[in-house]
Amino acid sequence: MSLGGLGVDQRCRCIETESRRIGKLIESVELFPPSSHCKDTEIIATLKGTGQEICLEPAAPWVKKVIEKIIANKAP
Amino acid sequence: MSLGGLGVDQRCRCIETESRRIGKLIESVELFPPSSHCKDTEIIATLKGTGQEICLEPAAPWVKKVIEKIIANKAP
Repeated sequence: MSLGGLGVDQRCRCIETESRRIGKLIESVELFPPSSHCKDTEIIATLKGTGQEICLEPAAPWVKKVIEKIIANKAP
Repeated sequence: MSLGGLGVDQRCRCIETESRRIGKLIESVELFPPSSHCKDTEIIATLKGTGQEICLEPAAPWVKKVIEKIIANKAP
């Protein structure tokens, strides 16, 4: 789950990550590199329609593929 | 430059992209896949400190590397 926010969070945003492959539902993806607030990269997807924010697992192969597709100018 | 917004934009967010390698300045990166609003992927970086939003070029090798580093749990 994500707490999103205005980038002023002082700790990790994600408590748990989504294990299902929800690539088709993704409207946008936000990447937060490791920082003083959170030692691990966090990836938060915003879903189409609802705008719901979902944390994804950076180490999951399907998540990497989704991001690679987006960078390659394709819909996930 | 970026217009950011609440995800309700009805057209492309980026007018131009940053050509300098600003990886070290990046606090977070948001990826917008192609959609009915904008045919091309858009990548918007938020900068440390100022929170300024800057559009990056998805096809630029340094941008891909920055994103790959973040996914690999490293600071860009």
